[in-house]
Amino acid sequence: MRANNLTLLTDLYELTMMQGYFKNPTNQTVIFDMFYRTNPCGGAFAITAGLEQMIEYIENLKFTDEDIEYLRSLNTFEEDFLEYLSNFRFTGDIYAIPEGTVVFPREPLVKVVAPIMEAQLVETAILNIINHQSLIATKAARVCYAAKGDAIMEFGLRRAQGPDAGIFGARAAIIGGCAGTSCVLTGKMFDVPILGTHAHSWIMSFPDEYTAFKTYAKLYPNACTLLVDTYDVLKSGVPNAIRVFEEMREEGIPLTRYGIRIDSGDLAYLSKEAYKMLAAAGFDDAVISASSDLDEYLIESLKAQDAKINSWGVGTRLITANDNPAFGGVYKLAAVKDADSTEFTPKIKLSENTEKVTNPGNKTVYRLYNKKTGKIRADLICLADEKLDADQNMVLFDPIDTWKKTKVLGGTYEVRELLVPVIREGKRVYESPSVMELREYCQKEQNTLWDESRRFVNPQKVYVDLSQKLWDLKKDLLEEISEKALD
Amino acid sequence: MRANNLTLLTDLYELTMMQGYFKNPTNQTVIFDMFYRTNPCGGAFAITAGLEQMIEYIENLKFTDEDIEYLRSLNTFEEDFLEYLSNFRFTGDIYAIPEGTVVFPREPLVKVVAPIMEAQLVETAILNIINHQSLIATKAARVCYAAKGDAIMEFGLRRAQGPDAGIFGARAAIIGGCAGTSCVLTGKMFDVPILGTHAHSWIMSFPDEYTAFKTYAKLYPNACTLLVDTYDVLKSGVPNAIRVFEEMREEGIPLTRYGIRIDSGDLAYLSKEAYKMLAAAGFDDAVISASSDLDEYLIESLKAQDAKINSWGVGTRLITANDNPAFGGVYKLAAVKDADSTEFTPKIKLSENTEKVTNPGNKTVYRLYNKKTGKIRADLICLADEKLDADQNMVLFDPIDTWKKTKVLGGTYEVRELLVPVIREGKRVYESPSVMELREYCQKEQNTLWDESRRFVNPQKVYVDLSQKLWDLKKDLLEEISEKALD
Repeated sequence: MRANNLTLLTDLYELTMMQGYFKNPTNQTVIFDMFYRTNPCGGAFAITAGLEQMIEYIENLKFTDEDIEYLRSLNTFEEDFLEYLSNFRFTGDIYAIPEGTVVFPREPLVKVVAPIMEAQLVETAILNIINHQSLIATKAARVCYAAKGDAIMEFGLRRAQGPDAGIFGARAAIIGGCAGTSCVLTGKMFDVPILGTHAHSWIMSFPDEYTAFKTYAKLYPNACTLLVDTYDVLKSGVPNAIRVFEEMREEGIPLTRYGIRIDSGDLAYLSKEAYKMLAAAGFDDAVISASSDLDEYLIESLKAQDAKINSWGVGTRLITANDNPAFGGVYKLAAVKDADSTEFTPKIKLSENTEKVTNPGNKTVYRLYNKKTGKIRADLICLADEKLDADQNMVLFDPIDTWKKTKVLGGTYEVRELLVPVIREGKRVYESPSVMELREYCQKEQNTLWDESRRFVNPQKVYVDLSQKLWDLKKDLLEEISEKALD
Repeated sequence: MRANNLTLLTDLYELTMMQGYFKNPTNQTVIFDMFYRTNPCGGAFAITAGLEQMIEYIENLKFTDEDIEYLRSLNTFEEDFLEYLSNFRFTGDIYAIPEGTVVFPREPLVKVVAPIMEAQLVETAILNIINHQSLIATKAARVCYAAKGDAIMEFGLRRAQGPDAGIFGARAAIIGGCAGTSCVLTGKMFDVPILGTHAHSWIMSFPDEYTAFKTYAKLYPNACTLLVDTYDVLKSGVPNAIRVFEEMREEGIPLTRYGIRIDSGDLAYLSKEAYKMLAAAGFDDAVISASSDLDEYLIESLKAQDAKINSWGVGTRLITANDNPAFGGVYKLAAVKDADSTEFTPKIKLSENTEKVTNPGNKTVYRLYNKKTGKIRADLICLADEKLDADQNMVLFDPIDTWKKTKVLGGTYEVRELLVPVIREGKRVYESPSVMELREYCQKEQNTLWDESRRFVNPQKVYVDLSQKLWDLKKDLLEEISEKALD
């Protein structure tokens, strides 16, 4: 049923182009950048994720005999090329921005430096994996921001776009800030907290709601969250839950993790009323958990209404990034080095839209932090051989509206290079932190943003500028092409 | 990297509930219905898909030693229950509406009849698989309808929500009507056409566009679609393509499958101008293929503008069902049979919203076709023991607004039962057709709809009514609950 080997997880045109290069060997080494152009969900940032799965994909690239047999059956590929594929392995270098990092449009998140055939083959899977997980991590960061410190539980598996979307989406959601997931397989694969209690069907399979609650409480006294909306939240669910909690108290069972979950109706009203009833019975520390098509906007609204909810189960709209279900990352050729050359020749892809013109050359990304606040001052996309000296004054300028300039004084900022090597000559040179470590790192990353860049409406953009050297190179290449076109 | 065994692809609460039933054995057999409430994308229908993967999931259910070890580590499950899980297999019956069928809200797409613990375990994965593929098949049917017979190629792998979303999304897209996919792995797994030519990077890796085209044409003279928008579609791309086609013609190479692809810019204008240039050079039969964030609305608009496009590459917005990325299928308890009983007791789930009240009991779905036109007259959700006699007159009535009645004359319609058995006592009793057969079946299915139900704006709803017997049962149960609440 499931393909274990993802080597054929690629677009056919990658293979037809590969055969083209095989038959017309140039022995070029190329640089491809994976980057995105627009922040998801109208936000001012994204969170990278999926790197570990991307590295595993690269490490495991191998065409099986079955794969070769299938490709042969297409009558498109010649025997010498199939022979080449059967011995294929990835021999290039890959740099990437670590998972959980706050990133911005046009920054290379992944940089592939490899023989052109290899770099081409891996395009589709790299995009698939990084696009998906970065999307969900970003959405999760937004949802968690809305919840202002309350726990967010990822509950979306049943609505995810297939098994992987559930499994790896939950992984990404936890990196972005979720406290745990309902997906047991994600828990097993990535050693992350898994959460959940019972469904309406549990209640309905008993003669009455009280018996269902009571049975559950006896089984799981230490994690006793009762679903109160099967019949009527305030007339039946909450009173029955209180009755069960009271009986537990009388029996001397410590009420540690306990509470109710409301899965439908007016969550603001119901939670406030339920809280009053619970508090009147001496259960004001009960968790009041809510679920029901939640997202960052609804949670923000419920918070603004002083809803008495302190735990949130978020499903469909998080696991699909409902309002923006694709990340939009692209993979573009940035430079080519011929076999007989030692230098990369920068390449540029034109577009009618100035913002879509690619940044040429072998690049890296530096982040400038304000020394005092720890917040991001700006990012600078540079050529890879440029070094920044944090003791020097710098003038940053907007790469489109170049008259927009800012001076950054030497000594007031710290510099960090974002891209790190993850694959060298086809071998992994990077060990991923655990998912829970990535989650912690990602929290810190999000704290390097001002709240103004994290809000949902009209967030403040973070500056991503080009170094003077890169900007000059880009301008020269554009002039050159434009001159040619006039000939 | 990838989990081969999907047994833990479930929500934790399924397992906590299972342990609850294990510890409090009722030996109930239950019926769960999987159905959805709202058609995706504002349409009037959906297409079912994913059944084959669902059956495989059921057949392969087995907790490995590793799974048990993991569950033990959670300190939530007791040894006797873990022992039970280690011997677990699914022993129930499953009925389903075959893949590729046109379906409507509230119809059971899948009906699970099984011991309560088993029926509960499989909830999450059934929803995940059927929700995902039905969503994409439905979206694909819409996109193909807009294209009015032109070929739609599924190109979305790089933007899909993870590997499975790409692999099985492409499968579902083909069931819904796509001519093929770019995803090589889907081609291999399901024996479906795979398609693709080259990327901008191919063009950019050559000294000039003409050389890139020429090299490609030499390699693939029988499938020579040239991407013309790397530099300038009308000034460079199309003239260079025509030059290459002319040289092929001069060399006597038969131009069978050849043409251009436009991936950016104003597709209406560019395609018309490109067509004029191609036609003037004697290439009026060249395929003009377009891609660039297409969906059913854009294709419909381009068709209305008489764009000269006859082949469409659709990526992101199809593979994510961009405007409606979750299908919203649910899995609800419909009936319970106690160990000492031979009869199922119908169960109903209330909701403030009348349309959300579930349909109780052991049900089936009949479809009435107009004998003359072959179009769907109405669907009727019945109790499973009801038989319809197509020779008798029938009065159908709206299940919400019951005064809305229609009489259907005996002899004017044909009847088909939609649910078929797929699993009996845990064993597969259904062989899925091939994906290309499903695609053909799905075309026929879509032809049983009037165009008025297929259009995108305000489509005409298809009647889904309840039989008198089911309606009476539902009313009685509601009355009973309502009486009880007054006590």
